[in-house]
Amino acid sequence: MPSSLAPLHVGLAGLGTVGAGVIRLLAANADLVAARAGRPILVTAVSARDRGRERGIDLAAFAWEDDATRLAARADVDLVVELVGGADGPALTLARATLGAGKPLVTANKAMLAHHGLELATLAEGAGAALRFEAAVAGGIPVIKGLREGAAANRLARVYGILNGTCNYILSRMAAEGLEFADVLADAQAQGYAEADPSFDIDGVDAAHKLALLAALAFGTPPDLSLLDVEGIRQVRLADVRQAEALGYEVRLVGLAERLGDALAGRVVPSLVPRAHPLASVTGPLNAVVAEGDFVGRLLFVGAGAGAGPTASAVVADLIAIARGEAGPAFSTPAAALVPLAAAGPERRTGRFYLRLRVADRPGVLAELTAILRDSGVSIESLNQPASGADGTALVVMVTHECAETAARAAVERMAALSAVAEPPLLMPLLPTEG
Amino acid sequence: MPSSLAPLHVGLAGLGTVGAGVIRLLAANADLVAARAGRPILVTAVSARDRGRERGIDLAAFAWEDDATRLAARADVDLVVELVGGADGPALTLARATLGAGKPLVTANKAMLAHHGLELATLAEGAGAALRFEAAVAGGIPVIKGLREGAAANRLARVYGILNGTCNYILSRMAAEGLEFADVLADAQAQGYAEADPSFDIDGVDAAHKLALLAALAFGTPPDLSLLDVEGIRQVRLADVRQAEALGYEVRLVGLAERLGDALAGRVVPSLVPRAHPLASVTGPLNAVVAEGDFVGRLLFVGAGAGAGPTASAVVADLIAIARGEAGPAFSTPAAALVPLAAAGPERRTGRFYLRLRVADRPGVLAELTAILRDSGVSIESLNQPASGADGTALVVMVTHECAETAARAAVERMAALSAVAEPPLLMPLLPTEG
Repeated sequence: MPSSLAPLHVGLAGLGTVGAGVIRLLAANADLVAARAGRPILVTAVSARDRGRERGIDLAAFAWEDDATRLAARADVDLVVELVGGADGPALTLARATLGAGKPLVTANKAMLAHHGLELATLAEGAGAALRFEAAVAGGIPVIKGLREGAAANRLARVYGILNGTCNYILSRMAAEGLEFADVLADAQAQGYAEADPSFDIDGVDAAHKLALLAALAFGTPPDLSLLDVEGIRQVRLADVRQAEALGYEVRLVGLAERLGDALAGRVVPSLVPRAHPLASVTGPLNAVVAEGDFVGRLLFVGAGAGAGPTASAVVADLIAIARGEAGPAFSTPAAALVPLAAAGPERRTGRFYLRLRVADRPGVLAELTAILRDSGVSIESLNQPASGADGTALVVMVTHECAETAARAAVERMAALSAVAEPPLLMPLLPTEG
Repeated sequence: MPSSLAPLHVGLAGLGTVGAGVIRLLAANADLVAARAGRPILVTAVSARDRGRERGIDLAAFAWEDDATRLAARADVDLVVELVGGADGPALTLARATLGAGKPLVTANKAMLAHHGLELATLAEGAGAALRFEAAVAGGIPVIKGLREGAAANRLARVYGILNGTCNYILSRMAAEGLEFADVLADAQAQGYAEADPSFDIDGVDAAHKLALLAALAFGTPPDLSLLDVEGIRQVRLADVRQAEALGYEVRLVGLAERLGDALAGRVVPSLVPRAHPLASVTGPLNAVVAEGDFVGRLLFVGAGAGAGPTASAVVADLIAIARGEAGPAFSTPAAALVPLAAAGPERRTGRFYLRLRVADRPGVLAELTAILRDSGVSIESLNQPASGADGTALVVMVTHECAETAARAAVERMAALSAVAEPPLLMPLLPTEG
């Protein structure tokens, strides 16, 4: 590839930690990036909310736009990097303007793509401009490339993983230090590992955005959040972590999407991962993605799921690919050929489940619980009653045999209505060792 | 991408398990491959040693060439897949003919690329034809793409992993079943997991070929086997596996390449992997690769390292990328810009080491051994003497503190010369937990 090719001129919107990381990376590794891209990659213009904020980088070399949308129209911008964030608003306006101008768009914005992915992919293909989003899922791990290109020859049956570093950090610390959820969360917020408003992370929304994108790539379907059941980790107690360990499992927030014929079964839910499964050893803020293909078998990708360096690495990987002239549809399959899937009802989803209840510590309660399970057609593989609490309640932990998720949920609902049940029960699926 | 693009016509040389797997994959997933490639991918002509051999596939649809080299010149062949194998001979002749004709080459041939990679990359770039080899390293795992494109923005400090599935299978079974090396090898050969002549695998040669390719990609240097120290697993005893476990480690054949300034430290050697390290949980025939970048941190890729399905998946991934028009140099950096590195002498390589000796079971021997270590400047972190054997010899297992590899090797050489030392000592490096 001739090194005399013209530089790729980049307009960068959003100068938070990731945006500043991109500028730092392009400066630090300029020679290497140019060699691999076949041409230099230069930021020419930037935009952010506050021009004066201290970011540890010198903005003097870049043209400034108060309105990010104007980056798209600049003659000295060949491509826009969107790091503004938010599903709609300025990010979406900028994305539409960029692709509408026939210029490639690189974005880390999973919320925007999960909500507007089909529209933007269609726009991109119509304009003949690339739309790339490696940084939107699992930070620095090249998992978008891994699914879209690495596993491109495969029909994928299932894609799943640990997609939110904050949740994994919290669950790992609960296990390692014997702390309750709320205490770890407060400490994580104090240390900057969790947002002041953590609900996006701990309620599973962020993981669901990422799962929607992985499912779109894996199954050739438009991203569709409405297909996913989403549950966060607020209800997970230290007692659950300890009971899971005693059973040979680790608790992880797992996003899993599976294709069942013309339907998609997708959920983000705290899950029991068998200790022998590779996801069980993924601790702290790491992310991990597993893809299962009909020829390749099981692929596992692990790495840093967030942070300025890893996310900048993913953004610049996309820039290099575009600089090299890499094209192809955003979601691997052309937008017009993406096939919408229906949500697989819970009656089609089967598995084994962990069920934790706090009940009044008196005779007869267990009989009530087991009668409900019998009536619901759910059979029990194990039942444990750890030491009773001082408050007159006792923990009951059960693991079911394979059953329909509907049956398990119906049983839990009936149990929750019992007077002896002191708090909402927690139901968590067990991830099979194979799969 | 318009679906009216002309098909990509493939000539396929070599119809062993992988070649047959490629034909099967292209038939089974033709729709999906065409959608992702933007055009159909069709095998038009094939070549193999024995036309009549039963392969479970129908060859009637393909033109036949007795001489694989003739595939390159056929008008109905746009691209050649080389699955003949061997560093030289027909494979190399075919590779040169294909690239010389300006046609892209896809190969799984690590031996050929490890020996002739620079020549072939130069030829490919001169002809403007792609040279791709995802299947040459770690089977179905998209690790070539992961390094070349996924981590393209990073300066990589180190790349390492479990690169030979046969060795990993043998070491895993030794640990799981308490068997000696020779017994597992014999059984693996009987089951077809190991070749009749297993030396390529168990002596580390195959892993070295792959490591040379990973190092080339990671460090922008021509593949160079002469830089690598290579040692296989023949000397590993069950006792070593057990002693390692007692110390908190698993024995794995690790290929590791590290850049030290203008030098490359590279070795394939049985190593002690800490149980907390992700490579420790990679068992059986799996492969795993770790890459450490300055921005992305540590990336881990795990999957099937061999087999018809996974390897065919990698071959077809390359075909799809080429069908899409993906270009770019074979080793990421243009061939002319690849910078040869010197071998980092062992004096620049430091670490902790496991040392196993079988010695005469009599007083004074330990004093001789420890005196040698003292004189060599190697200090000992732990020393164990498991139960003595019935043959009048005893095992001595030591772990050193951080020291120069030269010092450890010098000590081992002096020990080996002692009359009390009953067999050649075994020295294995410890892989640090971080890195």
